[in-house]
Amino acid sequence: MTFAVYLPPQARTQSVPVLWYLSGLTCTHDNAMTKGGFQKHAAEHGIALVFPDTSPRGEGVADDEAYDLGMGAGFYVNATQGPWKPHFQMYDYVVSELRSLLQGALPINDRHGITGHSMGGHGALIIAMRNPKLFTSLSAFSPIVNPSQSDWGRKQFSAYLGDDESTWAQYDATILMSELGWHGDILIDQGADDQFIDLLRPQAFADAASRRRQPCVLRTHDGHDHSYFFVSSFAEDHVTWHAERLHDY
Amino acid sequence: MTFAVYLPPQARTQSVPVLWYLSGLTCTHDNAMTKGGFQKHAAEHGIALVFPDTSPRGEGVADDEAYDLGMGAGFYVNATQGPWKPHFQMYDYVVSELRSLLQGALPINDRHGITGHSMGGHGALIIAMRNPKLFTSLSAFSPIVNPSQSDWGRKQFSAYLGDDESTWAQYDATILMSELGWHGDILIDQGADDQFIDLLRPQAFADAASRRRQPCVLRTHDGHDHSYFFVSSFAEDHVTWHAERLHDY
Repeated sequence: MTFAVYLPPQARTQSVPVLWYLSGLTCTHDNAMTKGGFQKHAAEHGIALVFPDTSPRGEGVADDEAYDLGMGAGFYVNATQGPWKPHFQMYDYVVSELRSLLQGALPINDRHGITGHSMGGHGALIIAMRNPKLFTSLSAFSPIVNPSQSDWGRKQFSAYLGDDESTWAQYDATILMSELGWHGDILIDQGADDQFIDLLRPQAFADAASRRRQPCVLRTHDGHDHSYFFVSSFAEDHVTWHAERLHDY
Repeated sequence: MTFAVYLPPQARTQSVPVLWYLSGLTCTHDNAMTKGGFQKHAAEHGIALVFPDTSPRGEGVADDEAYDLGMGAGFYVNATQGPWKPHFQMYDYVVSELRSLLQGALPINDRHGITGHSMGGHGALIIAMRNPKLFTSLSAFSPIVNPSQSDWGRKQFSAYLGDDESTWAQYDATILMSELGWHGDILIDQGADDQFIDLLRPQAFADAASRRRQPCVLRTHDGHDHSYFFVSSFAEDHVTWHAERLHDY
């Protein structure tokens, strides 16, 4: 597994908080590192950044010809089915394996925030809600929030988890919001001109949060689509959001 | 020829100044647009951005197997030799052809600044100094400043311009600084850990500027190399620098 890390100057002399960024379909550890523009703001706020890959890769790893299944499309679940089961354990990878590795290797403390884009926004929401003690702060960029009801979700959950939809709920942010909620406030940014908005279903999550009286800021931005130009336009806001919650100001 | 343009929100209602960004070896119009992080600052300052390609491309265009000659390596000269002559006219393309096209097609005014990275920094310096009436402001990121004396220059000038080195001087920023100077101040940023610093020769240009008492700020930054992480780290400074000179505040 490949991942990218950014350490701010403050990490030379002290342990710093960490912001996890989970990427979307087709991305690697490299996309947000190269195009997201998070580093400058992380430097200013004294926060480390971690960019995991979006799936296992390499010889012997199962794959599919479609861009939205297999390599580059792990969906942050633990696969239980067929050829996916041996390697596609991205939920455990992010929650346990990579976290343990980083804690031992880097000057980071135990205050972690998590965010992500599209499929990665889905990953951030489900991982944070299911592991509230591990994460202090939560945000997302144009996340897939209701994969059980979306063509970005049903196909993949069928493949990775099987046809028993009761096993899907643990990976659906809208269902988890209804069942678990979140201990803090949540920031979600969404482009109003996102070409994939019907697959993302932001309103389903906003409705679930509203029913629970969950503090959740969903901002919709005119003129923005699903691209990294959208992510980089609001990178500063998200780093600042997390910094205000991760630091003991 | 492909190029990229960014128009700030202010361009919806008025003509705005333009900042040209010339890219380095192997780049296209896309690199700085995707990885430079200039757009946000251009939006704040009401400045359009133009990213030309670094060479002609396509079938029938001469090329070389080396990364530093032919496509992706035009060096912003007008070639006079052999197979390069028909298409490799990048100096005229930037100074005349693309400028005319943009003036007719976009809501821009006649206040233009120019910057660039590496080979593109070389292009910015020589084009501005030779066309002082066309450009109001000038900066560069880790520019090649003395190509007549560098392996990033001698090989290419021999191929494009021939072996008579007297024809090279018009494309050498250090020589042009001695002969012409520049009507304003110049900002140059340079990484102290730049792996190509011996090819760039920033001190040669600084010495020529100093002899002329030319206002030139050469900033050397510890811990920065030649990558786009360096460019994006100082993109805001350069956009601000140009904005202060392009706007009639």
